[in-house]
Amino acid sequence: MTLTLGEGTSVTGLVFDSACEDGMMSETNRKFLLANRPDGRPDRDTFELVEEDVPEPGPGEALVRTLYLSVDPYMRGRMDAGESYAEAWAVGEPLQAGVVGEVVDERGTGFEAGDVVTGNLEWADYATARGAELQPVDPENGPVSTALGVLGMPGRTAYFGTREVADVAAGDTFVVTGAAGAVGSVAGQIAKLSGARVVGFAGSEEKVAFLEDDLGFDAAINYKETDDYGAALDEAAPEGVDAYFDNVGGEITDAVFTRLNVDASVAVCGQISLYNAQELPTGPRKLPALIESRATVEGFLVGDFAPRFEQATRDLAAWVGAGEIEYRETVTEGLENAPDAFLGLFEGENIGKQLVKVGERSE
Amino acid sequence: MTLTLGEGTSVTGLVFDSACEDGMMSETNRKFLLANRPDGRPDRDTFELVEEDVPEPGPGEALVRTLYLSVDPYMRGRMDAGESYAEAWAVGEPLQAGVVGEVVDERGTGFEAGDVVTGNLEWADYATARGAELQPVDPENGPVSTALGVLGMPGRTAYFGTREVADVAAGDTFVVTGAAGAVGSVAGQIAKLSGARVVGFAGSEEKVAFLEDDLGFDAAINYKETDDYGAALDEAAPEGVDAYFDNVGGEITDAVFTRLNVDASVAVCGQISLYNAQELPTGPRKLPALIESRATVEGFLVGDFAPRFEQATRDLAAWVGAGEIEYRETVTEGLENAPDAFLGLFEGENIGKQLVKVGERSE
Repeated sequence: MTLTLGEGTSVTGLVFDSACEDGMMSETNRKFLLANRPDGRPDRDTFELVEEDVPEPGPGEALVRTLYLSVDPYMRGRMDAGESYAEAWAVGEPLQAGVVGEVVDERGTGFEAGDVVTGNLEWADYATARGAELQPVDPENGPVSTALGVLGMPGRTAYFGTREVADVAAGDTFVVTGAAGAVGSVAGQIAKLSGARVVGFAGSEEKVAFLEDDLGFDAAINYKETDDYGAALDEAAPEGVDAYFDNVGGEITDAVFTRLNVDASVAVCGQISLYNAQELPTGPRKLPALIESRATVEGFLVGDFAPRFEQATRDLAAWVGAGEIEYRETVTEGLENAPDAFLGLFEGENIGKQLVKVGERSE
Repeated sequence: MTLTLGEGTSVTGLVFDSACEDGMMSETNRKFLLANRPDGRPDRDTFELVEEDVPEPGPGEALVRTLYLSVDPYMRGRMDAGESYAEAWAVGEPLQAGVVGEVVDERGTGFEAGDVVTGNLEWADYATARGAELQPVDPENGPVSTALGVLGMPGRTAYFGTREVADVAAGDTFVVTGAAGAVGSVAGQIAKLSGARVVGFAGSEEKVAFLEDDLGFDAAINYKETDDYGAALDEAAPEGVDAYFDNVGGEITDAVFTRLNVDASVAVCGQISLYNAQELPTGPRKLPALIESRATVEGFLVGDFAPRFEQATRDLAAWVGAGEIEYRETVTEGLENAPDAFLGLFEGENIGKQLVKVGERSE
């Protein structure tokens, strides 16, 4: 049985030589390239879907079939030329993503065919990787997709950002922006576990209900329906802000800065409201507020905590297992729809982790 | 011999009852009140000079004759209503200042007549204070005026801000704004002693020469003659910025933020460029730069380090004594000219510590 899959087709289950016993794969591999550098906001023309033969793993490489791929706001930075903490993608070259996949051809990697792994691979049906670039995913920890969310990079970002950077403690008032997203939703729950009063900013009534009703936030503010962030904060955080986890930036952050308590800590995790700006927008200069509060504002990258990732994953898995941390995923079906999933991040379309489902696990 | 001193007269040496053996004083006390709250930039009408009898110390109080008083940028904040880290001055009430003075009438304070003391007193020829509000000044440490400068609050601010907040280390590139001022000039020299490359921003060629030639800064930038702060920094700090001590804020700080190295530290000490703004001006939003650099931006007040003031004064006195730290003072003669001295801070008229000389030490 042989079919050629065209662009936009989401079926991936086809028989392909010896791999047929381990899983189903197409003989054609689809993958997205960076078509051009977006000037401001990316759109579908930023992405080019190409087809090629399924790649042949070299010595010491595995062939991995994508089950889920992750789209994340930080990827916007990789579309620009120039230095950034994440290497710039080259025009005409494949886009990369956190992927959960199944090993199809393991070669000498130490994995076995059928193993579920995660790694930084491509926006593609298949990719090859050296063994050291792949980490095993333990299906005992929950659905394998969580390796890209609550038990993966976003969960670890929330874990270290909340505990180590925002430095939350019992009795604190903790504020988080992008609160219904993959990182913010976990950050708020970790702050609750630490004994803080938790206030989240999110962009819809559905998200507000999710935060207040499902996740136990003390208050949630729909910023799209709020004219005066300061007044909303005065109501939701009447004793000021001790710890602030910022994923968004801009005017909400301005309002928080003038409400920081003495020795408050601000973790700058993301600034999604600014990522598509061609020039950084202006806002009121807020450094004077830091003198009075003696607050600390600190940017961080989760990669700096790599030596402690195991600890974070273990704690997060235990909390999820015990029902102390809830998570949600927004799953877009089909690799061909990955650009829309990515673009939707900037519209706030997702609740919890935004994933793209590319393939099914084999039996 | 009796004279009545009018407003604007700078002569202070007159015989006054029993104190004549310890010093010379006028029988009239002049002092400045806050005439009104400035709307934006203060001017001479912000201040009212009044005369009264020399105050009579109560039980446990000393009468102190002012030798020097300190004018400082933070005083601008005290002129506004509303909460600030320093209590707002009341309209119609005396202005306060760091003062070095001579004890005229010691009562039961434990001091002796003729002792030189420092404390937070008034913009006045004389003031009363309880013993606990006064600290002795050791003339062995140098001219007594230094208790308001390099060995006083500005010196300690530089000491803790540079070492503890900006966290400077050998090999760092350290940048300081307001570099020729009371705090900045000491901060830069402490950073040099720590083994850093030191770059200062100041507002005249005279100040640039002072920094480079007298204080040993590696580079100084006359920001008033520089269109492109970023380009100037790229030249003066080609390896980026590891530690930044900010007294000024605004556009220079914008340029520094995008040149912070990984794990850089920013000490927000002052933002003099913004203190007279009626509304905070806008500037480009710079928090994204903190993510990439994982920099820490921290506001601080020197008062938080009070338990360690003795250590700071001891170290600073030793450095000054050994010629490792140089200091300069800009002295305005006459209490009546204190408002001009204060207003001059916002014009950058001073090099080093701006003082007002009010009286002479008695023999």
